[in-house]
Amino acid sequence: MSEHGTTDELAERVRNFVAEEVLPVDDAFDGDVRAAGGEALRIRLQGLARERGLLAPHGPVEHGGLGLGMVDRIEVFEAAGRSLFGPMAINVNAPDEGNVHLLDRVASPAQRERYLAPLVQGRCRSAFAMTEPSPGAGSDPGMLRTTARSVDGGWLVEGRKRFITGADGAGFLIVMARTSGEPGSADGATMFLAPADSPGIEVVRHVETVDRSMLGGHCELRFTDLFVPDDDVLGGVDEGMRYAQVRLGPARMTHVMRWTGAAQRAHETALRYVSDREAFGSRLADQGMIHQMIGDSEIDLAATRALLLDACRRLDAGERASRETSITKTFAAEALHRVVDRAVQMCGGLGVSRDLPVAKIARELRPFRIYDGPSEVHRWSLARRALRAVAGR
Amino acid sequence: MSEHGTTDELAERVRNFVAEEVLPVDDAFDGDVRAAGGEALRIRLQGLARERGLLAPHGPVEHGGLGLGMVDRIEVFEAAGRSLFGPMAINVNAPDEGNVHLLDRVASPAQRERYLAPLVQGRCRSAFAMTEPSPGAGSDPGMLRTTARSVDGGWLVEGRKRFITGADGAGFLIVMARTSGEPGSADGATMFLAPADSPGIEVVRHVETVDRSMLGGHCELRFTDLFVPDDDVLGGVDEGMRYAQVRLGPARMTHVMRWTGAAQRAHETALRYVSDREAFGSRLADQGMIHQMIGDSEIDLAATRALLLDACRRLDAGERASRETSITKTFAAEALHRVVDRAVQMCGGLGVSRDLPVAKIARELRPFRIYDGPSEVHRWSLARRALRAVAGR
Amino acid sequence: MSEHGTTDELAERVRNFVAEEVLPVDDAFDGDVRAAGGEALRIRLQGLARERGLLAPHGPVEHGGLGLGMVDRIEVFEAAGRSLFGPMAINVNAPDEGNVHLLDRVASPAQRERYLAPLVQGRCRSAFAMTEPSPGAGSDPGMLRTTARSVDGGWLVEGRKRFITGADGAGFLIVMARTSGEPGSADGATMFLAPADSPGIEVVRHVETVDRSMLGGHCELRFTDLFVPDDDVLGGVDEGMRYAQVRLGPARMTHVMRWTGAAQRAHETALRYVSDREAFGSRLADQGMIHQMIGDSEIDLAATRALLLDACRRLDAGERASRETSITKTFAAEALHRVVDRAVQMCGGLGVSRDLPVAKIARELRPFRIYDGPSEVHRWSLARRALRAVAGR
Amino acid sequence: MSEHGTTDELAERVRNFVAEEVLPVDDAFDGDVRAAGGEALRIRLQGLARERGLLAPHGPVEHGGLGLGMVDRIEVFEAAGRSLFGPMAINVNAPDEGNVHLLDRVASPAQRERYLAPLVQGRCRSAFAMTEPSPGAGSDPGMLRTTARSVDGGWLVEGRKRFITGADGAGFLIVMARTSGEPGSADGATMFLAPADSPGIEVVRHVETVDRSMLGGHCELRFTDLFVPDDDVLGGVDEGMRYAQVRLGPARMTHVMRWTGAAQRAHETALRYVSDREAFGSRLADQGMIHQMIGDSEIDLAATRALLLDACRRLDAGERASRETSITKTFAAEALHRVVDRAVQMCGGLGVSRDLPVAKIARELRPFRIYDGPSEVHRWSLARRALRAVAGR
Repeated sequence: MSEHGTTDELAERVRNFVAEEVLPVDDAFDGDVRAAGGEALRIRLQGLARERGLLAPHGPVEHGGLGLGMVDRIEVFEAAGRSLFGPMAINVNAPDEGNVHLLDRVASPAQRERYLAPLVQGRCRSAFAMTEPSPGAGSDPGMLRTTARSVDGGWLVEGRKRFITGADGAGFLIVMARTSGEPGSADGATMFLAPADSPGIEVVRHVETVDRSMLGGHCELRFTDLFVPDDDVLGGVDEGMRYAQVRLGPARMTHVMRWTGAAQRAHETALRYVSDREAFGSRLADQGMIHQMIGDSEIDLAATRALLLDACRRLDAGERASRETSITKTFAAEALHRVVDRAVQMCGGLGVSRDLPVAKIARELRPFRIYDGPSEVHRWSLARRALRAVAGR
Repeated sequence: MSEHGTTDELAERVRNFVAEEVLPVDDAFDGDVRAAGGEALRIRLQGLARERGLLAPHGPVEHGGLGLGMVDRIEVFEAAGRSLFGPMAINVNAPDEGNVHLLDRVASPAQRERYLAPLVQGRCRSAFAMTEPSPGAGSDPGMLRTTARSVDGGWLVEGRKRFITGADGAGFLIVMARTSGEPGSADGATMFLAPADSPGIEVVRHVETVDRSMLGGHCELRFTDLFVPDDDVLGGVDEGMRYAQVRLGPARMTHVMRWTGAAQRAHETALRYVSDREAFGSRLADQGMIHQMIGDSEIDLAATRALLLDACRRLDAGERASRETSITKTFAAEALHRVVDRAVQMCGGLGVSRDLPVAKIARELRPFRIYDGPSEVHRWSLARRALRAVAGR
Repeated sequence: MSEHGTTDELAERVRNFVAEEVLPVDDAFDGDVRAAGGEALRIRLQGLARERGLLAPHGPVEHGGLGLGMVDRIEVFEAAGRSLFGPMAINVNAPDEGNVHLLDRVASPAQRERYLAPLVQGRCRSAFAMTEPSPGAGSDPGMLRTTARSVDGGWLVEGRKRFITGADGAGFLIVMARTSGEPGSADGATMFLAPADSPGIEVVRHVETVDRSMLGGHCELRFTDLFVPDDDVLGGVDEGMRYAQVRLGPARMTHVMRWTGAAQRAHETALRYVSDREAFGSRLADQGMIHQMIGDSEIDLAATRALLLDACRRLDAGERASRETSITKTFAAEALHRVVDRAVQMCGGLGVSRDLPVAKIARELRPFRIYDGPSEVHRWSLARRALRAVAGR
Repeated sequence: MSEHGTTDELAERVRNFVAEEVLPVDDAFDGDVRAAGGEALRIRLQGLARERGLLAPHGPVEHGGLGLGMVDRIEVFEAAGRSLFGPMAINVNAPDEGNVHLLDRVASPAQRERYLAPLVQGRCRSAFAMTEPSPGAGSDPGMLRTTARSVDGGWLVEGRKRFITGADGAGFLIVMARTSGEPGSADGATMFLAPADSPGIEVVRHVETVDRSMLGGHCELRFTDLFVPDDDVLGGVDEGMRYAQVRLGPARMTHVMRWTGAAQRAHETALRYVSDREAFGSRLADQGMIHQMIGDSEIDLAATRALLLDACRRLDAGERASRETSITKTFAAEALHRVVDRAVQMCGGLGVSRDLPVAKIARELRPFRIYDGPSEVHRWSLARRALRAVAGR
C-alpha cells in the first residue's frame, strides 16, 4: 500500500463509495448525524465500507486495517472528508482514528486485544477525555484538574471533563488524569483506559455546538470514584503528556486531511454554481471578482496540501514535527475556512440555504480554528520557538 | 423626538425592554423564532412593547408611530438589535420596517388606511416580493420575469418569487412585477399590493437557511392569475424600480443598525468571557492577541457607526445617498461579520456552543454579506461610479 | 469661515494652488524635499500661498491665520495633502501645525509673540522634541529620560532625542524633559521652548528614512547643558504630559487629513491609468478584479472620512475624544496604506516607477502606521478601555 | 550534488560567503547597486565567489557550473538571497539565471559556446527583452508588437521594449519578436540572440523604480533595423512563446527562492530587535501582538517553502507544472511581502530607516507582486483552469 499508484486507486474507491452511499444521507439530513440515524447509520455505513474493503485504512494490518502511513493517508482521508459522514463511514473519524494511532504505539498486548482490535474493526467507538471546564485543562493542558489516586489494585479517578467528542455511546474512554503535581504544572498526567459502562462515569450533558456531524456529540462528563485497574493504565504513570504529544501531531494532520475534502467539495459546488448562473449580462463564471475568489481558494487549497505533505513526510520519517504540524493545522484551519466562506459567497442566497451543501460545511468547519488548539495558541508557541532559535544563534 | 437627549433616553428604554423581556426568550430558543413561538411570540412581545410605548418608533405619528428620522433611529434600532427578536418586538424588523417607509412615501390615502396603519400598529406583517429563482431577478433586479398584464379593472400577476422574507403568515405582500419591457431591461416594473389570502398566491416552500430568526421565513412563492385591482397598484405603473430605490437606501441602513446591536452584544459577551478566564498563566483579558482582536473590533464597530451616521444625515437631508448607503452596507456587513467571528474565537469552545449567544449571532449575521446586494455587486457599482467620476473630470 | 460653503470654496482654492504651483515641483523631484530645494523651496511656495491668502488657515486670526476649527480643516488639509509638499506650502505641515495648535492653547502672551506669531506667518519652522533613542521614550512616553534640573533663573536640559521631525533648520524647539519622577513613571514631564541656536543643542544626525518629504528631516539631537530661562517654560512645570495630550488628538487628525489627500491622488491616478490600458482583450477599467480594488478603496476612503468627521466634530465640541482620535488614526493609517498599495498594483510596472506618483506616495505613507503611535499601541489602549468599560457595568 | 547533505553544506558555504563578503557592501549602500559600484562590484564579488567554488551552482557542469536541479537550488538560492547583492555575487540573479536555464535547453552548440558559456562563467551579463510599452506586450504576452521580418541571411528587428532588466551593460540580449500573426494572437513569436553592441540597439532610458539592486536597471530599449543572422535565432521560428514557457516556470521559482532569503533576513532582524527592546513594562518579545506577527510570518514562510518544494519536485520530474509555479509565485509574492511588512512594523521607527535592513528589503520586494505576472493575472489563469476542470467532469 506504500506505492503511489495504489494509494491513488484506493482514494478513488473511497471517493466513489462516499459519492454513492454516504453523500446522499449526509445531504438529506443536512449533516446532522443524530437526525440521520446516529449509531445505526454508523453500523450500516461501516458495513458497506467493510464489504468494499475500505474500513480503517490507517489501522494496523494485524487487526484488519490497511496500515497506511501518514503520506498515504492524505488522499484517502481527503476523499472520505468530502462527506461529513465519510470519515465515520470508513472508520477514520476523530477521535477514534487518533486513538487507534495512540493505542498502536502505546497499548500493551492485552490492551491491544481488548481495546484496539474492536476499535479498528468498527465494533465500538471511543473517546479521548482530556479537556475540562474552566478553570481546568482547556487549550492549556497543564491546568489539568481531574485526579487519579492510587488505591489497592488500581486507581480512583475523580473530576469533570468537557468537550469530550463521541463520549455518548462510546465503548471506552481514554482518560487523562493527574497522578502527581498540581494544576499548573506541565507534568504529572497519566492516561487510563475505561469501558464506558464502568461505574462512576456519567454523561452530564451534550454541549450543543454549531457542528452536528460528530456521533456521540461533545459531552460533559463527571467521574466519581471511577476505578481503573492497574492493567488499564495506558503506558507509564506520569507519562500522559508525552503520549498526548504522540497522538497530537498526527491527529492534527488527519483533521486537516478530512477538512480539505470538505472544503474541496464546497469549492467544487461553487465552481458548478457560477458556471450555471448569469447576472448583469454575463455568466458569473466569466466575472473577475468570481475569478479572484476562485484563484484565492485554489491557492489556499494548494498551500494547505503542500504543508500537509511536508509535515506528513516528516512524521513518516520519525520526526516529531511539532512545529510543522502546528503550522499546518493553523494555516489549514484558517485557509479552509476562507475557501468555504468564499464558496458560500459565490453561491449567493442559495449559499446560505440547505439547497446546497456549502452552508453546512461552513458550520461544521468553523470550530476547527478553535478545536485542537486555537490559532492564537499555535501562533504563540510558534513565536516562542522562533525567538528561542534566534536567541541561540 | 428629534432632539438628542430624548433619543438617547428612548434607546435606553428599548435596551432595558429587550434585556428584560426579549433576550431571555431569544437565548432559551437559540434565536429560532419558530421554536420560540412564532406569530404568538410576536403578538405577545409587541403587546409588551406597546404597553411601554416602544412600538414602531419609526412609524408615522398619525398611525401611532414616533416618527423618528434616520439619524434618530440609529441608537434605538441598535438597542433593539441586541436581541435577534428585538426588532420584531418593537416592530422595526425587516421587511415590515422598510415597507412602512415605502408606503409612507408612496401609498394613496386608501392604501395608507388599509395597509400602512395596521402594519405600523402590529396588527399584521408584510412581505416584499421582488427576488426570483434563476434566471429571474436576483442581485440584478433588471432580470425581473414575473409579469402583470392589464385586464378589466386591474392586473393579473403571474410568476415565481424566491427568498421572500416573512411571506408565510404575512397579512399582505408588495409584489414587483413587469408591466412592460423584457427581462434584462432595467425599467418596466410596477409595485402591487395584495392581501396574502388573495386567490392565486401560493407559498411553495420555505428556503431553509442558516438564519432562523425571521418570522415567516424566506419563502418561495408562486403567483397564478393573481388579480390585483387598479386601486392596489402602489404608485405609478412602470415606476416600481424607482420606488425600490426609495425603499432601498434606508432599508440598508436600518439593517446595519440592527446588526450593529447584535454584533455589539457578541463583542460584550466576549469581553466578559476573556475577563473571567485564565490560560497559560494569565487572564485572557491581559494577553496581547486578545487585545488585538478587541482593538480590531472596536475599530470595526466605530467605523460602522461613523459611516452610518454620515449616510443617515444625508438621507435625513433629502439626499438619495445611494453611494453612501452602498458603502455603509458593504463595509458594515463585512466588519460586523469580523466582529462576531472574533467574539466566537475569543470565547473558545463555548464560542461555538449554545452556552453563549455568539455562535447564533454569527449564524444569523452571515447572510447579510449576501442579502440586500452581495458585497461584490456593491463594489462593482462603486467602481463604475468612481470610474465615471474620473472620466468626467 | 465656519459655514460649509466657504470652506468648500477655500478647499477648492487650495486644490488649484497645489495643482498649479506645488505638484509640478513635487513630481519633478519625486517628493524629495531636499533635492527640490529645501528651505528655499518652502520660502518660495509659502510666498505664493501668502499672495493667494492661503497661508496657515488653521492659525489664530490675530496672527494672520484663518482660524479654522477641526471640521473645517478636513477638506482644506486634504486638498493640501494631494501634494507631498502641499501642507508645507500652505504652512499646515507637521510638526508646525500641531505646534501652532499647542502654543495657541498653552503659550503665555510673550511666548505667543516670540514663538507662535512667526510660526503662523511662515517666518520660521519648529520641532517637537519628545521621542528618544532606546531605552528612552518611544511609543511609551513614560520612559522619558531627558532631564531638566532647576538652576538659578531657569533649567538645564540634558539628554538625547531621536526622530525629531524638522529639527534641522528649525527656528525653535519644544522640548519635553523630565522635571520629576523616574523613567517609567507617567508624570513628571515639562515642556520647554528653546531657540534652535541656543548653546547646547546639537543635531547629531539625520535618521535616513523611507520618507523624504519632510523639511528638516527626522533628526537625532543631543542636549548638553541647554539652558532654558523660566520664561520659556511652556505652561506649568510637571504638566508636559497633559499638554502632549492636548496636542496629540488634533495632530493625529490633521495627519489623517493630509494623508487622505495623498491617498486620494494615488487612487485617482490609478483610476485614470486603468481607464487607458488594455490587457487580455478588454480595458483594465472593465475588469472585475480591478473593480474589486477600486470598490475596496472607495470604501476605505469613505470610512476614513466618516471617522475623521465624527472625531473632529467631537474635538470642536470640546471633547478630548482620545478614543475616537485613536481609532481614526489607526484605521486611517492602515486603510490609506491599502488604498495606495492597490493604486500601485493597478498601475502595474509603472506603479513601482517614478513615471507615476503612486510609488512615492506609498513610500511616504508607510511610516504613518508607526509614527504617532504604532497601530499595536493604539489597539492595546483601545482594548484596555473596552475591558474597563465592560468591567464597570 | 544531488544528495541532501551536500546541498545543505553548499547552502551553508553560500550563507557564510554572503555574510562575510556581500552583506557589508549591501548594507553600506542601502542595496543600491549603482552606488555600491555597479559592474565593478559584480566582477569583484563574482571573483570572490569563484575562488570559493560558489559561482553558478545552477549552471551546466560542462561550462563550470555545479548543475543543481530545482529542488537542490532552493536552499542555496535562499542563502544567496539574504543579501540583495548575493544572487549577483554567485551569478544566480535574474535575468541571467533564467537565461542560462533557457539556453541550456534550447541553444545550438555554437550558441552555447558563444552565449551560454561566458554567461555561466560571469564573463558577461544578459537581458531578456520581452515586455513592451503599452499597447504592446505587458502582462499579456500575446500583445507583442516588436516585429522581425525575414531578410537575406537573417532578420531585421524593429520595435520598443520596456522593463528590460539588466539591459544597460549586458553582453547580449534575448529578444522576443513577432515573426507571424498580429498583435493579439498568442502565437507567432520568435526568440533572437543579439550582442548588446549590435547596431540598432538603443537604451532609451532607465525606468526608475523603487527597487535599486538590479545591475543594469530596468531599461526602455529601441530596436531600429537590428540585424540578427539566422544562426542567432534561438530555437525554431514562431516557437518563442513555447520557449518562454520553458523559461517561465523555473524562473518564477528561483525568484521565490531568492526573495525567501531576503524575507527571512528581515524576519530575523525583527526577531532580534524585539528581543532587545522594552515598552510599556515588558520586552517586545514577550508581548502577544508581537507573537501574533511572528507566528503569522513563520506560517507565511513555511507555506512558501512547502509550495516551492512541491513545485520544484514536479519540475525536476519533468512536469511543466505551470499551475503549481503560478500558485507558488502568487502566494509567495504576497506572503513574503507580508513577512517583510511585519518586520518593518515590529522594528518601529528604525524599521522605516536605513539603520536596519528591513525597509530596503520591503522596497525591493514590493514589485514582485507585479513583475513576472501580477497576482491578478495569475488568479485569473488559476480560476479559468479550475472552471475548465469542473466543466470537464
